[in-house]
Amino acid sequence: MVKRSPLSTTEDQHMDNKAVMSLFMKHIWNEGREDMVENYVAPQYKIHHDPGDPWHGKTLNLDAFKNRLRVSRAPFPDQCFTTREMIEENNNVAISWLWQGSHLGQLAGIKPTGKMITMSGLTIYYFENGKLSGHWQMADRLGVFQQLSSFSPEQN
Amino acid sequence: MVKRSPLSTTEDQHMDNKAVMSLFMKHIWNEGREDMVENYVAPQYKIHHDPGDPWHGKTLNLDAFKNRLRVSRAPFPDQCFTTREMIEENNNVAISWLWQGSHLGQLAGIKPTGKMITMSGLTIYYFENGKLSGHWQMADRLGVFQQLSSFSPEQN
Repeated sequence: MVKRSPLSTTEDQHMDNKAVMSLFMKHIWNEGREDMVENYVAPQYKIHHDPGDPWHGKTLNLDAFKNRLRVSRAPFPDQCFTTREMIEENNNVAISWLWQGSHLGQLAGIKPTGKMITMSGLTIYYFENGKLSGHWQMADRLGVFQQLSSFSPEQN
Repeated sequence: MVKRSPLSTTEDQHMDNKAVMSLFMKHIWNEGREDMVENYVAPQYKIHHDPGDPWHGKTLNLDAFKNRLRVSRAPFPDQCFTTREMIEENNNVAISWLWQGSHLGQLAGIKPTGKMITMSGLTIYYFENGKLSGHWQMADRLGVFQQLSSFSPEQN
């Protein structure tokens, strides 16, 4: 008899998608743990739709995903997503989320303002065999630029 | 024995939420049928989150909903939403959508440009007893203003 840890996973027996979703948001986007990317992300990750994201429309391998994580988090190194709700059906999980971060690095040509910025959005995440294989997302980027420009109007 | 039309509904036996969702988008937002609002919308409809929408955070009765429908459709009277996907769980339906419309009426102080505008977004709709009781939404409003301003830069 093979003894199996309760946390062990196989293709047939993997973590609940919502649990993966929560841990992915915590470890990857909130904490920036590049070493944990392969725990949650499939070998090919497609950004189906994400207006304003430099990788919109692209398919990323794990190294490219880690690069995107690093570059995306740089302007807001303390960023934190709070997931409001998750709606799951057929390996798709839609989440609504709130976000905040301190603007400590250059963003789209705007120098760091130090300002605490808030944002909100919705994302549909697609799962394959318990890992994330892509997303379709909309974030309130106009709201972000309004907050940044009110702080540093001379840069607009 | 009571004979019942296959389309008749009661509180216990109502249309599938996804079917309501599709018909709501077609009749209400695409066709502007104010006379059909009560078929789909609950007596109290809460706009939980919808940045840029003048009714963000408000709870609307049916008359207020009809007014919002009229005012919202005025700048783009031929607007059309295309629902890409629906994800349903526990009386919540998340949809991703594409939108297009001709800019034929005043919008946020910008005079009609006649331009065909495209937009995308995500919405979570909340159901109660087969009717819509509210939403949480994010639309790509920055994308809309970028399209409008490139067409009429003197108005920015």
